[in-house]
Formats: sequence, C-alpha cells, structure tokens
Amino acid sequence: MIAAFERALAAFEPAHLPLAVGFSGGADSTALLAACAARWPGQVRALHVHHGLQSAADDFERHCRAVCERLGVPASVRRVDARHAAGDSPEDAARRARYEALAAMASEQGVRAIALGHHADDQVETLLLALSRGAGLPGLSAMPAHALRGGIDFHRPLLAVPGSEIRAWLEATGLPWIEDPTNTDARFTRNRIRAVLLPALAEAFPQFRGTFARSAGHAAQAQQLLDEVAAQDLETVGEPPRIAALQALSRARQANVLRHWLARVHGRAPSAAQLDQLLDQVRACTTRGHRIHLKVADGFAERRGDRLHWYNAPPSPPASR
Amino acid sequence: MIAAFERALAAFEPAHLPLAVGFSGGADSTALLAACAARWPGQVRALHVHHGLQSAADDFERHCRAVCERLGVPASVRRVDARHAAGDSPEDAARRARYEALAAMASEQGVRAIALGHHADDQVETLLLALSRGAGLPGLSAMPAHALRGGIDFHRPLLAVPGSEIRAWLEATGLPWIEDPTNTDARFTRNRIRAVLLPALAEAFPQFRGTFARSAGHAAQAQQLLDEVAAQDLETVGEPPRIAALQALSRARQANVLRHWLARVHGRAPSAAQLDQLLDQVRACTTRGHRIHLKVADGFAERRGDRLHWYNAPPSPPASR
Repeated sequence: MIAAFERALAAFEPAHLPLAVGFSGGADSTALLAACAARWPGQVRALHVHHGLQSAADDFERHCRAVCERLGVPASVRRVDARHAAGDSPEDAARRARYEALAAMASEQGVRAIALGHHADDQVETLLLALSRGAGLPGLSAMPAHALRGGIDFHRPLLAVPGSEIRAWLEATGLPWIEDPTNTDARFTRNRIRAVLLPALAEAFPQFRGTFARSAGHAAQAQQLLDEVAAQDLETVGEPPRIAALQALSRARQANVLRHWLARVHGRAPSAAQLDQLLDQVRACTTRGHRIHLKVADGFAERRGDRLHWYNAPPSPPASR
Repeated sequence: MIAAFERALAAFEPAHLPLAVGFSGGADSTALLAACAARWPGQVRALHVHHGLQSAADDFERHCRAVCERLGVPASVRRVDARHAAGDSPEDAARRARYEALAAMASEQGVRAIALGHHADDQVETLLLALSRGAGLPGLSAMPAHALRGGIDFHRPLLAVPGSEIRAWLEATGLPWIEDPTNTDARFTRNRIRAVLLPALAEAFPQFRGTFARSAGHAAQAQQLLDEVAAQDLETVGEPPRIAALQALSRARQANVLRHWLARVHGRAPSAAQLDQLLDQVRACTTRGHRIHLKVADGFAERRGDRLHWYNAPPSPPASR
C-alpha cells in the first residue's frame, strides 16, 4: 500500500530547488511536506493559506506552524478573504484565491516550484465535476501533474496515489494532521462525490482511479494538439481574424481558432450557443454589407471591414433625438 | 415525463424512408417501433436479431412477431451466433454481430436507414464504460445520434430521453414488452453500472444525463477536428509516411497522424506504449543507417528507405544453422 506513495515521491523531480509545498495541515499535504523535507533537507518550505472566513482558520495556522517546527521547515502564512462573486461557486473563488496566495508567497521568497498534495481521488473528483458541468476537453483533462503558470512550476506528484495510501504512510510517521471541517459537510459537490460516488465507482470498476486518470490524460493530450492547431490557424487568419480566412477553414476548425483567439487575446470563453451563432454569422457573411454583432461572453463580436473584432466597451449613451 | 419521448420523436428526421427499427422486444425498441409506425404508417419495418446462444431466443422471436402483427409492421429475423474471440468481451462480440445482422437485413430489403432505441441512460453507461477502460476521445464520444456506416444511416433518436420516460410512454400504450434476462444479471459491467452507479450519479448530480451527454458531444467534436487535421497531415507526410516529414511535426501531431494512418490504412490501433516507442524511434532516426523495427498491434512498424512501413507478415522461419 505505502509503496505507491514512496514510488511517487521517488519519481518526483521538481523543476527547481528550493521547493515550496502548499500546506493546509490536512493529511495529504502533511504527508507531502514531510516526505519532501526528508528528501531535500534544508531546501523545502511550507506555504500556508489562512482562510480568513473560516472560523477554525486560526487553529489551522497554529497547527501548521507546530508541524513545520517539528519538521524543521520554515513556514509562510498568507491570509485570503475569498468572497465569491455572483455566478462563481464558493469553491472556485476559494481555489483561485489560494493559488494566487501560494504564487505570491513563493515569488516573495524567490521560490520557483510549488508542490501540491492532490491525489488520485481528487483527480477522479475533478473529472466527475467536469462531467457534471458538461465540460469540454479542458475540463475533462482534469489536473495536470505539471503546469508552468506565472513563472512558477506547479507540481502534483501524488496524482496517481489513492488518498487512502497517503494516510497509511502518514499514520506510520506519527505526524498529526487536521481534518478539514468541510470534508464531512455535504453542502459541497466535491464532498457529495466523495461520500456517494467514489464508493459506487469502486464497486463497479475497482480500477477506476487509474483508468479515469488515463482518459483525462488522453483529453489533455488532445487539447494540447487542438491548441497547437488553433495557434497555427490564428497566424493564418490574423489577429483580429479576417473573415474570409476563417471561412476557408472547416466549421470545427473555425470554432477551435475562435475559442483560442477569445481566450488568448481577450481572456474570454464563449458559451457553446454563442459560438454556434457566431459561426452561423461568419458563414452567412458573404456580402460587403453583412453585419455581425453578437453578444459573446461579457462583450460583443462585431464585423469591422474584413475582420472580426471583440470588445466589451461600456454601453454607448442612447442616441439623442 | 412522457413529453421528452414525444419531443424526441417529433424532432427525429430519418435520412430515408422506409425506415427500419432494430427491435429486440425490450421496452426501448418496442416504444420506438410503435412510435415510428404511428408516425410513418406503412413505411416502417422491424428487424429482429435472434441470438442463437440465448435459451429464450425463440420465445423472444415469437413475442416480436406477435407485437409486429399487432402494429401492422413487417418483421425480419436473422439468427446470429456470436461466439466471442479471445481478448474480446462477449458483449462486444454480440454487439458487432447484431449490427452486421441489422445492416444485412436492411440491405436485402433496400432499406437505407435504421433507428436504434438507445437512450440517455445507455449513453451515460457507454461514457462510463469508456472511462473504466481509460479510453481516449473516440471512446469518450460515446454513441453518435447519427452515423453513416456501410451505406446505411444509423439513427439514435432517443439519446436524450431517460429510460424511465420511455417506459412511462410505453405503459400508456398498453403494448407488451419483454425484460432482457441479462438485465438483472450482475455479470456484465453494464448491468453493474445500471444497478450501482446510475443511482449514485442521480444522487450526486441530478442533471447528469444531460451534462454527461454534453461532455461526450465535446469529445466527439474534438475527435472530428483531430481526424481532419490527421487527414491533412497524412497528405503532407505521404503514405506510407516519410520519416523526415513526420519529424517536422510536433510530437502530439505525429501521434495523431500515425494513429490515423494505422487505423485508416491498416485497420490497426497501437497501444499507448507502442505509439510512444514509435515516436521515440522516429525522433532518433537522424542517420542513414538508423533502423526502426517495432511491434505495433499484431504486426511491425519498420523503416524502409526514407519511409515508415507497417506490415503483419507471418513470422519468418527460423534461420537454418
């Protein structure tokens, strides 16, 4: 059992040392921190995000500082106050705030690699959450084992290790950990998955952790290839895209390059229905006078001359009469 | 409840009339047959596959003929004997044999469109089965609502309708149906999914049928685009592929075009490990003398001159000493 955790740690090669570990005080990050500290003595530090809104957050911080002292690992703590915006789940808001805080703490210390304790169960949950939203390939790709974001290498060395094996390893060390109080709270979908779906999956497909991860990997590879094709196609159609050049591509490829353009240039994701309407408009755009003006994300796609533009200017004042 | 079934039928536009319906005598195909017969009177016929190996198959045939008589629909019956080959699941073998029998019956009657009774629960099961195998996009795409195969249009008009709504509609008609004896047999994975996983999914994600189908649709669209890119790339690298032309592509794109080449030209699917080794060999092939000779599927990929070949010749006799 424990072998899977130790194999994963032995295979872990961080992009840089020193290495920071995102440390919540829960079982997974405690095991990861302890194992990394043992493997790279003096080169590991802990980053703890203090969730100001959670009543027990002060206790968590105290616990984490105590564990770090015992491990001889320096600890940084940053407070985040993740109020979620409308249309945003509280979990999404908390996750985004957590990553930003981790990256900021690492940067301040000149640390360029962060390890996170996500494991195989987390990965399956992420994939199931994507399916529960009807997500496309980026969602079905679940979490990458390695990603470079904002100049920092994020590593997830435990993605192939079941949560139970991490706990078994940790129990053998005698280190204490805290149970996140949200873990037994069925309010959050993730906990509903953990309590209801994972046991059913284990009964139907004993190997589900490995096979689901393999499917997620196929989705990630496919998405990488689609991104590569989109980047090439964007060079061909230009930025902003020339409508005639778009029309020379198949509809599937137009969708791919327009999604890529909106994401990379404008940081926006159109809904499936908006993209579909936009493609219909591009196809219909065969005369000089054809107008394109469509709501896309929080702005508008519009024809200007021979090109397609996107903007989210404030609404213009009503025309005077 | 029943509205979903009737909406799906109203939206169904077969590619051709007359239309054949694959008719097992189970609830789903009975409902589909009855509804199609009512919508296109005199233009619908039933195709029943008699599974010779199943003890109750004769009873099923009698039942189906009786229902068809009551509906005034002509019935064809064909016997298949689906013994499964080694490494092939009994369900896969039975499915392949069933499609071949349906297509053969339709062709004999000059019928070019076949409707099948697969519904939303079947679609979710297909996606979960793909995940349980670690499948890539073709598997994650699940079943298409429409596919042209061997000159016959296969339609699945009920893919968005939950099984329970089809039964509710059928019960209101008073038509009899048979319960497939394998349905309550936990031997088959599909039945394990139905008994264990679907209830858990319904508890965790009440909307799972719709959202899982949307994710499958995204996978299918992405796969279509990857196929399009692969076909273009195959034109560029040639057939059999020129190694130098392959090397000019990114690794992800090489994988895509090689998979496409092996599937389209040789009807073979390499394992992920074989494809990975092949890509390593292609990358390493920088000298005139570099040899490539790798097991791929049930044959070998081999360098010959400046090209990559695949063959599955019988093993050559042992060299005489």
